[in-house]
Parts: sequence; structure tokens; C-alpha cells
Amino acid sequence: MRVLTTLRAVPSFAVGHVRDLRVRWALEEAGMPYEVRLIGPEDQASPAYRRQQPFGQVPVLRDGKLTLFESGAILLHLGEQSPALLPVDASGRAEATMWLFAALDSVEPELGNLAELLFFSAHEAWAIERRPVLEAAALKRLQDLEAWLAHRDYLAGTFSVADILMTTVLRLLDDTDLVAGFPALKAYHARCMARPAFRKALADQVALYSAEDALA
Amino acid sequence: MRVLTTLRAVPSFAVGHVRDLRVRWALEEAGMPYEVRLIGPEDQASPAYRRQQPFGQVPVLRDGKLTLFESGAILLHLGEQSPALLPVDASGRAEATMWLFAALDSVEPELGNLAELLFFSAHEAWAIERRPVLEAAALKRLQDLEAWLAHRDYLAGTFSVADILMTTVLRLLDDTDLVAGFPALKAYHARCMARPAFRKALADQVALYSAEDALA
Repeated sequence: MRVLTTLRAVPSFAVGHVRDLRVRWALEEAGMPYEVRLIGPEDQASPAYRRQQPFGQVPVLRDGKLTLFESGAILLHLGEQSPALLPVDASGRAEATMWLFAALDSVEPELGNLAELLFFSAHEAWAIERRPVLEAAALKRLQDLEAWLAHRDYLAGTFSVADILMTTVLRLLDDTDLVAGFPALKAYHARCMARPAFRKALADQVALYSAEDALA
Repeated sequence: MRVLTTLRAVPSFAVGHVRDLRVRWALEEAGMPYEVRLIGPEDQASPAYRRQQPFGQVPVLRDGKLTLFESGAILLHLGEQSPALLPVDASGRAEATMWLFAALDSVEPELGNLAELLFFSAHEAWAIERRPVLEAAALKRLQDLEAWLAHRDYLAGTFSVADILMTTVLRLLDDTDLVAGFPALKAYHARCMARPAFRKALADQVALYSAEDALA
């Protein structure tokens, strides 16, 4: 049985956004059952956990003899085990892999910087000065995605781990109306979030923290 | 013959830092010859190039029937073809892959945000206010890397594409003394940059832009 490590408790704003969501979603798409292992700050700082996750973060996935960190690496690893997550032909596999990296490295930094500013610092002086630059950078990425998705249902043609990553990245802006300005991207985002595997993964993460709240 | 696409001209501050360096370095480590294809802003904006690179960026690598974008995806693809870049055993391969993602997704965003602030905006009001937060975030990553590298020569034990990525990420801070404060990390950074394949790749990139300057 695969074992997914995640946080025992998170601030309320993080519920539904903890990165184990990416792994839960992939496991649901592939129909792979898993157990959840919960950790707290004392584990995150421990040498034993740092050997598994050198930055003390989540998620970590144990799969047989392998213990994996970094959500991108975990999704690629699961993708190699399931055609529901990664095409098996070389060309389709390459395209999905490129888009997985693109979501993480060309889109998440820009969207993440803007989302962090808007959520945590919108009224601070530095943020008011900086916001236009970060907003322009994020919009440039959204515009490029819009062009790519104008004639595609999913990034690599068929659904793949790249769409799991990109959806969780786009969700960083769900409290804004930025994605709504791009019709193909908006439809793509809705299409991905309508998948039963996403709904199940999200519900499971939210239920975990509701249950933990009730126990606290 | 593999074909690497990169920019015909870049601002002087970018010479030695264009991301084709990552691919050049990997190709040198693996002993894979390659040709260089140069593009300019008109290509970057063209629909034909956007089909290869949806964000209009470089590098792009053509390798047989595949045309790849995203430096992380390209390095992983090359790694699958050469044990000089990626261990062949499942455990070593997984570890190098995790660290490749860690360099791109857990380290580059923090170091990149700080480097951009220091290089382009250090004296602006927003930057003076924001700098301590970005510096603390970058130092936290460097501290975690220091702990990991205290007893290792390379991130995944033996040299791999993960070290290529991490070195180019650490180089973002080469104009600061931040890395110098971490002895194991400083030694690691020097160890990677002393590799003949890195020196060759860097010299080739610098020579390209010197030659283009001379022609201009």
C-alpha cells in the first residue's frame, strides 16, 4: 500500500491547497489506493524526516522501496505506472513531461508571487508599488496558456499529470478574476476541476482538516 | 545531430546565465555533440516557434523526432540516455529526479526572487521594505542544502542532472556572499563549477555572444 505523508494541521487558508492534493488527485485518477500518514512540526524538524524530505515539507510518498519528495517528481513517478496519468508513447510522454515542468517552473513562480502578494500583503506599501509588475508577469503567462489551450482540451492533448499540476497552480488565483478573462483557460480550469478524481481528492483533504479541527 | 535553440543576442548581464547553459553542460557531460540554432525576438513571437515553445523562451532541444522545451524536461530526457547524467538503478534515478525538481521548485523560486530584487531593484522603496523577507526565505533553503551536503559530494550521491540544475540556481547569488556563509554548500558549488563540462559549456555560451557582439 502506498503511504502519503502530509501535515496533521494547517492554517484555515491552506485547507484545500496543501500540496498533497496533487498526489491525492493523481492516485485517484490512477485508481491506486493509499494510506495517509500525518506529521507535525516536531516531525518536520527531525533528522529522520529531513532524510526523507530535506526541506521539511510535504508531501512525501512511500511506494514500495522508494520514498519520494517533490510533488513534480512524485507525479512523474506515478505517471510511469499508469496510462491514466502519462501517455505511453514517447512523443505523448515527452509532451506531458514538458508541460509538467512548465506548470511548475514557467507558470507557478509568476502566479505564486502574485497570489502571495494579494493574499498576505495587498495593503502594504511595498506591495502596492510592486503589484503592477507581478500582475503583468502573471497575465503574460495566462495569455500564453490561453493561446495554447484555444484548440486543446488538455495541455498534452489527453489528460495527464501536467493538467494536475497546472490546475493546482491556476487555483492560486481562484480568489481573483484574472483567469476569468481568458475564455479557453477558464473552460480548461473548470474542465479539470470537474473531474471526479479531483473532487474526491479535494474532499478528502478538506475532510481530514475538518476532522482534526473537531478533535482539537 | 541534436540541435539546441537559443537566443542570438542577450543583454550583457545575461551572458553566462542564459538557460541553454544547463543543456550545453548536460550535453558536454554526456559527450553528445550538438549544433546551435539562433533565434531573435521575431522568432520568439512567431506562431511556428510558439508551437515548439509556448512561452517564446529558450532553450529548445531537437533530439531525433522529439522537440523539447523546459530545461528540466530536457535534462531528464538526456539523463535517460546517459549514465553520466542519471543513475540507471531505480533508487539512484529517483533520488536524482527528486533533486532536479527540488532545485527548480523548492530552491530556484526563493533564490530567483532575491537575486532579481538585488540586481534590478535594490534601491527602490518596495525592495528595501521587502528584502529581509526574501533574504530570510533564501537563507532557509541554503541552510537546508548545507545540512544535506555536509556528508555528500553531490546531491544524489554521484553527479547527475540535479547538480547541473542546482549549480545554475546557486549561480543566481554569485554576486552576493550568501553561499559563502555555508562551507559545505560553497565547496559543492565550487566542485560542480570546476567540472570540465561546465567550463566548456560556459565558455561556449560566452564566446557565442562575444562573436555576435563583434559582428554587430
